[in-house]
Amino acid sequence: MSAQPPSLLKTFDNPNPERDYTIHIDTPEFTCLCPVTGQPDFADIQIEYIPDRLCVELKSLKFYFWSYREQGAYHEAVTNQMLNDLVELLEPRYLRINADFNVRGGLYTGITVEHRDPGWYDSDSVHLP
Amino acid sequence: MSAQPPSLLKTFDNPNPERDYTIHIDTPEFTCLCPVTGQPDFADIQIEYIPDRLCVELKSLKFYFWSYREQGAYHEAVTNQMLNDLVELLEPRYLRINADFNVRGGLYTGITVEHRDPGWYDSDSVHLP
Amino acid sequence: MSAQPPSLLKTFDNPNPERDYTIHIDTPEFTCLCPVTGQPDFADIQIEYIPDRLCVELKSLKFYFWSYREQGAYHEAVTNQMLNDLVELLEPRYLRINADFNVRGGLYTGITVEHRDPGWYDSDSVHLP
Amino acid sequence: MSAQPPSLLKTFDNPNPERDYTIHIDTPEFTCLCPVTGQPDFADIQIEYIPDRLCVELKSLKFYFWSYREQGAYHEAVTNQMLNDLVELLEPRYLRINADFNVRGGLYTGITVEHRDPGWYDSDSVHLP
Amino acid sequence: MSAQPPSLLKTFDNPNPERDYTIHIDTPEFTCLCPVTGQPDFADIQIEYIPDRLCVELKSLKFYFWSYREQGAYHEAVTNQMLNDLVELLEPRYLRINADFNVRGGLYTGITVEHRDPGWYDSDSVHLP
Amino acid sequence: MSAQPPSLLKTFDNPNPERDYTIHIDTPEFTCLCPVTGQPDFADIQIEYIPDRLCVELKSLKFYFWSYREQGAYHEAVTNQMLNDLVELLEPRYLRINADFNVRGGLYTGITVEHRDPGWYDSDSVHLP
Amino acid sequence: MSAQPPSLLKTFDNPNPERDYTIHIDTPEFTCLCPVTGQPDFADIQIEYIPDRLCVELKSLKFYFWSYREQGAYHEAVTNQMLNDLVELLEPRYLRINADFNVRGGLYTGITVEHRDPGWYDSDSVHLP
Amino acid sequence: MSAQPPSLLKTFDNPNPERDYTIHIDTPEFTCLCPVTGQPDFADIQIEYIPDRLCVELKSLKFYFWSYREQGAYHEAVTNQMLNDLVELLEPRYLRINADFNVRGGLYTGITVEHRDPGWYDSDSVHLP
Amino acid sequence: MSAQPPSLLKTFDNPNPERDYTIHIDTPEFTCLCPVTGQPDFADIQIEYIPDRLCVELKSLKFYFWSYREQGAYHEAVTNQMLNDLVELLEPRYLRINADFNVRGGLYTGITVEHRDPGWYDSDSVHLP
Amino acid sequence: MSAQPPSLLKTFDNPNPERDYTIHIDTPEFTCLCPVTGQPDFADIQIEYIPDRLCVELKSLKFYFWSYREQGAYHEAVTNQMLNDLVELLEPRYLRINADFNVRGGLYTGITVEHRDPGWYDSDSVHLP
Repeated sequence: MSAQPPSLLKTFDNPNPERDYTIHIDTPEFTCLCPVTGQPDFADIQIEYIPDRLCVELKSLKFYFWSYREQGAYHEAVTNQMLNDLVELLEPRYLRINADFNVRGGLYTGITVEHRDPGWYDSDSVHLP
Repeated sequence: MSAQPPSLLKTFDNPNPERDYTIHIDTPEFTCLCPVTGQPDFADIQIEYIPDRLCVELKSLKFYFWSYREQGAYHEAVTNQMLNDLVELLEPRYLRINADFNVRGGLYTGITVEHRDPGWYDSDSVHLP
Repeated sequence: MSAQPPSLLKTFDNPNPERDYTIHIDTPEFTCLCPVTGQPDFADIQIEYIPDRLCVELKSLKFYFWSYREQGAYHEAVTNQMLNDLVELLEPRYLRINADFNVRGGLYTGITVEHRDPGWYDSDSVHLP
Repeated sequence: MSAQPPSLLKTFDNPNPERDYTIHIDTPEFTCLCPVTGQPDFADIQIEYIPDRLCVELKSLKFYFWSYREQGAYHEAVTNQMLNDLVELLEPRYLRINADFNVRGGLYTGITVEHRDPGWYDSDSVHLP
Repeated sequence: MSAQPPSLLKTFDNPNPERDYTIHIDTPEFTCLCPVTGQPDFADIQIEYIPDRLCVELKSLKFYFWSYREQGAYHEAVTNQMLNDLVELLEPRYLRINADFNVRGGLYTGITVEHRDPGWYDSDSVHLP
Repeated sequence: MSAQPPSLLKTFDNPNPERDYTIHIDTPEFTCLCPVTGQPDFADIQIEYIPDRLCVELKSLKFYFWSYREQGAYHEAVTNQMLNDLVELLEPRYLRINADFNVRGGLYTGITVEHRDPGWYDSDSVHLP
Repeated sequence: MSAQPPSLLKTFDNPNPERDYTIHIDTPEFTCLCPVTGQPDFADIQIEYIPDRLCVELKSLKFYFWSYREQGAYHEAVTNQMLNDLVELLEPRYLRINADFNVRGGLYTGITVEHRDPGWYDSDSVHLP
Repeated sequence: MSAQPPSLLKTFDNPNPERDYTIHIDTPEFTCLCPVTGQPDFADIQIEYIPDRLCVELKSLKFYFWSYREQGAYHEAVTNQMLNDLVELLEPRYLRINADFNVRGGLYTGITVEHRDPGWYDSDSVHLP
Repeated sequence: MSAQPPSLLKTFDNPNPERDYTIHIDTPEFTCLCPVTGQPDFADIQIEYIPDRLCVELKSLKFYFWSYREQGAYHEAVTNQMLNDLVELLEPRYLRINADFNVRGGLYTGITVEHRDPGWYDSDSVHLP
Repeated sequence: MSAQPPSLLKTFDNPNPERDYTIHIDTPEFTCLCPVTGQPDFADIQIEYIPDRLCVELKSLKFYFWSYREQGAYHEAVTNQMLNDLVELLEPRYLRINADFNVRGGLYTGITVEHRDPGWYDSDSVHLP
């Protein structure tokens, strides 16, 4: 899978960087192609992050998801790629992506990936779930 | 977003300040305006706090939520603003706000913000969820 | 919207044409493009039909749904188009399509279309729901 | 309650007037004001109709709902008003509105209103639910 | 059981008497006393009616329910009594009450009572559920 | 299966015999023995009836269910037996029993039996579900 | 598909042939093989029938379902075959089979087949769902 | 709010004081009066405790809940009062009360209070939820 | 309550004693008698244990549950008794029983009891819930 | 139970071995035979693992599950066997299998088994559930 153009993603300044808090974004509308058969795959993507200086702009995130529509993408690789793109963009204190792919051949599969800033500690003010 | 008039919020004395305990308040009836398009946004707001000397009066909280009805408000900023207003008003031992906004463009978003009094410790008598 | 190539659709002989019975097919994996904005739309499609001489082959139906992936399609038109294609292909005794589209701008929309063979009557042996 | 400006509502030509079929539209985002107390009311509105020559354009319907935001409106009157506006606009073969209002004082209330074109009969091709 | 004072109940003019339409009212907050043991009983009450000239005012209905709080009431009798009171008050075209009482001794019980105006017929414009 | 002593069952006068109305009784606490293996069987029993002159007293119905606890009972026979006992006792206008037995060997089974008084017709005032 | 040995199926005398009543049997444990790929298919089977002189013995029905475990079977054909076998065995007044097959390639499919004895009419005593 | 007569509450000896274990009691049937308006309030009460020498007798607990029926009671005060009464009565190792009050004015509220015996530690044998 | 004959319970050798793992067993079919009124009580029993050398044989466990059918049993005592019987039989590394009894008088009650082998520690290989 | 041929299972290189992340796979389509009665058993299998160098190929996992179709298998043994096969194949950092078997004789049973690489520690980057 070729890397996605993270340039699609836009940011805005975190209005409350003095505080650890959590932003949740969930879309049931992710679709890409199976890299083996070329047929469509579908997934529900959940993102949860603690911003540092930057937040991701929602409309640009929607376009970013859209950019996978005609790409072949392995489940494990595409989930890690989205994590890498968002971490590079946002340099967040914490970010987790969970991708639940639609059933194929009787198997339901999902991938959960996390990033944690080395200089950040799960302090008193935010309990991760 | 201009700050809300916290003067709308009223308090009453905590009848049991000798003990840490939790008060939960949830409303599915929060609405404000999108600061970009001016169109209505809707959210479900959940508040959970451990009072110190003061509790928030429910009717005044309802009016406080109402005061956002014609205000433009970014998701992140409005949730942090509500936390700041309630913390300033109540000086609680602990307070958390979760705001789940209605889906827009296929994206479901939510914000979770916490405050913890520096002089207060999660003691034996209350386990936070 | 240009008509879909119903040639994608394949059939097999109804193994029990002597009896009215119902075949249900549901897919949560339909996606096309909004003809106004060009952005992706998503829908859950439910088909229910009473076959006459022919049944639709499932794999070809999957490819047929797939063929809408890069087409602009109004909700009403695309649902009627799918009905027309399947009726032309199968000449069924009865066929109904329900399409539930994903929420846009706070509105959930759905389309339900039915075909009934003029020479066929809802007899004793099948009660339609 | 003063009548809403139905001029907000826009239409497009029914792409398949030769056939009776059903269009469903549901929004959980309706809010108006209580005509007695002036406080906000909230409702979930479900519309279901069989178009004749015209369909309602979704974006204009969203603006129409929005136009009630600062209006005082009794439950019974506002639901009948919406029916009248849509019937006048669309001259549909059939149209039903159900409005489920949020609980007040321990009472959950809802209003269901129907219109049926006198010249139209529930024929073989559509079974109303 | 002594009859309830239906004078508690207030009405307002049906704003749309030209049309058959349905009003639903549900309360999970009904409580009376068991006429045998004197202990509290609890029920969920659902009312559905087609008004003629009058609608029941919601606040007065809440007070009416409240008036049963200290009354002994058999399940069958109290449900029929509420039907009689509302029919006498509203002279509706149709009215149904369903009362689901909380489980006692492993038995869940409910009562469903209907009134239908002799001069009214379930016409084209309203399908009763 | 030997017949149950319907003498366990007690009645009281229908307080509103002038009107057709429905009484629902559901218990998840029915248990008898398998007549083949002697091992316990469990069922959820739902009764729905339109009383004529008599209603069944709830406590006695509970004892009646209890009387099956050590009896061997085939699913079909026991459900018909309960119908017969209640019809003989109450001479109701209408009575239906549904018995959902707990899963055995991967099979979930249920029995639905109805009685309808020959001289009674499903009139305007009660719609059976 | 070769016909199943209906000799596996055993019957017992209907204990209440004087009355129309309904027997429901549901198993989530049906599995056969895909006749094209030879891979396992899974289904949930629901049977509902009004017995005449005979009822199907549950243990033998379980063995009958089991007999499909290593057989290739098309969805439509196998559901009709089960109907034919049970109708031949029981000569019931009414019998319906619904088979919901597990999702394959994003498509959920089901088959519903009914038999109705020509000499039997849906009389007053049983309302089919 | 005047204190409840805890003399209503009765106890029995813990049959297994040698072991920490948990007793759960939940009632959806709590009702008191709003101390401001005098109107009824309703709540679902959940109690969970680890007994020391004494357990609360269930029937007396039911009467204790009943004693609040005609009392004015603030949410926070009544929940703390019930905790105090039960702690005084039982001297338990651990006790928690959660009270979920019915929605008023669009706000759902709940109170959670805990007691922990100072001489008791959450040992290996019981994990509190 | 007289002690149950644990001799009913049979064991088999743990096939994998080299590893901590968890076995869950749940039955919704437990019934005993109320020791005060003699009337039937019903409960859902959940068992979860980490075996050491022995596992409980399922059929014997079913007979063990059955042996309570005609015994009077207090909720607290019977749950502790089942724990004691299973611990004596299996000498497990960990065992927990939760018993949820059916509602009586508006109160839902449950008992949770745990045993932990003193020489066993919740190591890396099993996280208890 | 003879060991399964793990040679059926195929692997591919973990595309992101530099990071701990979790892969979930769930199938409701597992069936084997009861080693005592020879009759079919059914289970829902959930696998969750943190890969090291290798991931399991999904199609081969499907065939691996299929290979149990005609094998007699005790619940405890088969779940441990699947863990052993996958650990031998993948040498994962962490792997857990939960198997929920269908109800038999009123008992629902499940087995949960975990493996944890001795050289791996639950670090900051993955929180196990």
